[in-house]
Amino acid sequence: MNFPELKNDLFLKALKGETVERPPVWMMRQAGRYLPEYRELQAKYSFFQRCETPELATELTLQPIERLGVDAAILFSDILVMAQALDFHVSIEKGEGPRIHNPIKTEADAFAVKMPDVADRLHYVMSAVTMIRKELNGKVPLIGFAGSPWTIFCYLAEGEGTKDFAKAKAFCFSYPKAAAHVLGILADATAAYLNAQIEAGAQAVQVFDSWGGLLSPEDFNVLSYPYLKRIVEQVSGAPVILFAKGVWYAMEEMAKSGAAALGLDWCLEPELARKLTGGNITLQGNFDPTHLLKSPEEIKKEVHSMISRFGVNRYVANLGHGIIPGIPVQHAQAFVDAVKSYSPIK
Amino acid sequence: MNFPELKNDLFLKALKGETVERPPVWMMRQAGRYLPEYRELQAKYSFFQRCETPELATELTLQPIERLGVDAAILFSDILVMAQALDFHVSIEKGEGPRIHNPIKTEADAFAVKMPDVADRLHYVMSAVTMIRKELNGKVPLIGFAGSPWTIFCYLAEGEGTKDFAKAKAFCFSYPKAAAHVLGILADATAAYLNAQIEAGAQAVQVFDSWGGLLSPEDFNVLSYPYLKRIVEQVSGAPVILFAKGVWYAMEEMAKSGAAALGLDWCLEPELARKLTGGNITLQGNFDPTHLLKSPEEIKKEVHSMISRFGVNRYVANLGHGIIPGIPVQHAQAFVDAVKSYSPIK
Repeated sequence: MNFPELKNDLFLKALKGETVERPPVWMMRQAGRYLPEYRELQAKYSFFQRCETPELATELTLQPIERLGVDAAILFSDILVMAQALDFHVSIEKGEGPRIHNPIKTEADAFAVKMPDVADRLHYVMSAVTMIRKELNGKVPLIGFAGSPWTIFCYLAEGEGTKDFAKAKAFCFSYPKAAAHVLGILADATAAYLNAQIEAGAQAVQVFDSWGGLLSPEDFNVLSYPYLKRIVEQVSGAPVILFAKGVWYAMEEMAKSGAAALGLDWCLEPELARKLTGGNITLQGNFDPTHLLKSPEEIKKEVHSMISRFGVNRYVANLGHGIIPGIPVQHAQAFVDAVKSYSPIK
Repeated sequence: MNFPELKNDLFLKALKGETVERPPVWMMRQAGRYLPEYRELQAKYSFFQRCETPELATELTLQPIERLGVDAAILFSDILVMAQALDFHVSIEKGEGPRIHNPIKTEADAFAVKMPDVADRLHYVMSAVTMIRKELNGKVPLIGFAGSPWTIFCYLAEGEGTKDFAKAKAFCFSYPKAAAHVLGILADATAAYLNAQIEAGAQAVQVFDSWGGLLSPEDFNVLSYPYLKRIVEQVSGAPVILFAKGVWYAMEEMAKSGAAALGLDWCLEPELARKLTGGNITLQGNFDPTHLLKSPEEIKKEVHSMISRFGVNRYVANLGHGIIPGIPVQHAQAFVDAVKSYSPIK
């Protein structure tokens, strides 16, 4: 496809480890409820209508670019579209978490999971990616994304979001082979999905392992990390960012995964993160989203401190998790502006 | 008070760092829903009836001692009785989390919080402690407990349990002095409460900082750790165990708090925990509660591996968080038996 030339390549340069004048900035869940223009579309269309209609997904993806001036766009979608592609019936009601109506309960349920034709089942995502890429007109690069196999599995086996995903973990301990079957399919399907997004126009992709941190280091190495690595190995044509929340203990190993960058939550300090990851990989994060409730002046101060601790190069300024709905837009703006106003000579 | 002589002092010896033939074992939330005899009383009495009636609290505390043969009893109660002592209206409905009906919303609400007469407001707890201690008849020692100031504050300001306690954190960032006022009172009231429990017969006390791990290392050092330390400094007459879930990053500092032992969740590996804490403090934990869903044979194998990694001395075998309701009693029994059957010569 012939897309307009990229004007702001700060984000892609940071992922490649090239020298930049300042770090790029975007925010996880930047197309979200804290934006009044998001809430307008939220009131009119259901969650999956917004995901499945390329025009709506495009509008939502572009909102924070126009409003805040971030350095990257991230596709508006949801990690659970992959569950739908695998024939799970997912609903997300307003004010509630997601629900899987036909969760995996038995070994037979697990072995019945078959590799889907992702490009066909999720064609609307790829249509949205291409439409967004055109609409962006080269302003900033577009990030595609997917959930990690472990995190998707959590929902498939638990049936809903819970604090500890005990049922999902129990399933893995009771039926390790059945769990590995599903996790393997999720890894291959996710790699195919990310490759299709890249082919459709995504210039980088991020894998969200939101529930990796519920696992002990040993379990993470059995139930999550091998599948993250399998995805990285299969994805080509764009850099991969791995974000495994709460997984400070596997940073050293993950730095060797082949990913271009690792996302961090706010519990891992910049100096320790650099030390654990060896200093040669791009790091992304890790502003505590609840700190966006502080005053714009304090946000600026803390963002500048964060950048000086991570360093300007091999770094993408971001939050340590998705932005929360109650953040005033001016505070999100203060976050973005603070990154842009950073100067190492102070 | 004159209590019967203690027959099994394994737990207290481990807390003192004395040499033992095997580690003591107990389980967080061992008086809980996984026990059929617990569910019988649960069906008859409300949660707070069970907490407030010394006879019921005694019966519930003793159930796992009789059934499983653990090496320590822990008072049946709830961390939120402290909220009640501070005039917050708390309800815990079956199948739901706790709810505070008059949460802290304004600075004025926070400054209205006054130091309570804990021994008076929570006299029923101290009555239960004395009754349990007598009923135990020296079989095993009795552990008292309380929630940490930060964790209690989370509920007071959030009004309910949530994933990120964003409102509670936001309150601290918006009104740091008002938050410090409440946290300071909570620390002093908690120290007084634990001292009253010790006077009534508790032979060790544990402070649960269940939500410490939601804080960045810097915020933990402002909002939680100073108050944990203040409690340790004020409590006397019995060893203090600090359990801050998810707070791997502060282990080094917490080892210097004056606490007799530190509790660990399952995300911190034994060798790293020993390294971070300097090897001279007793560690407690850290079996993943969901691993109790594995087979009794696997539980035994993993428990033995855990003990050999922590070492027999300065160690209390426990879970890394409370036991979950769905665990078969035989699996809890397998956990306890595995600790008792451990022999370093293998």
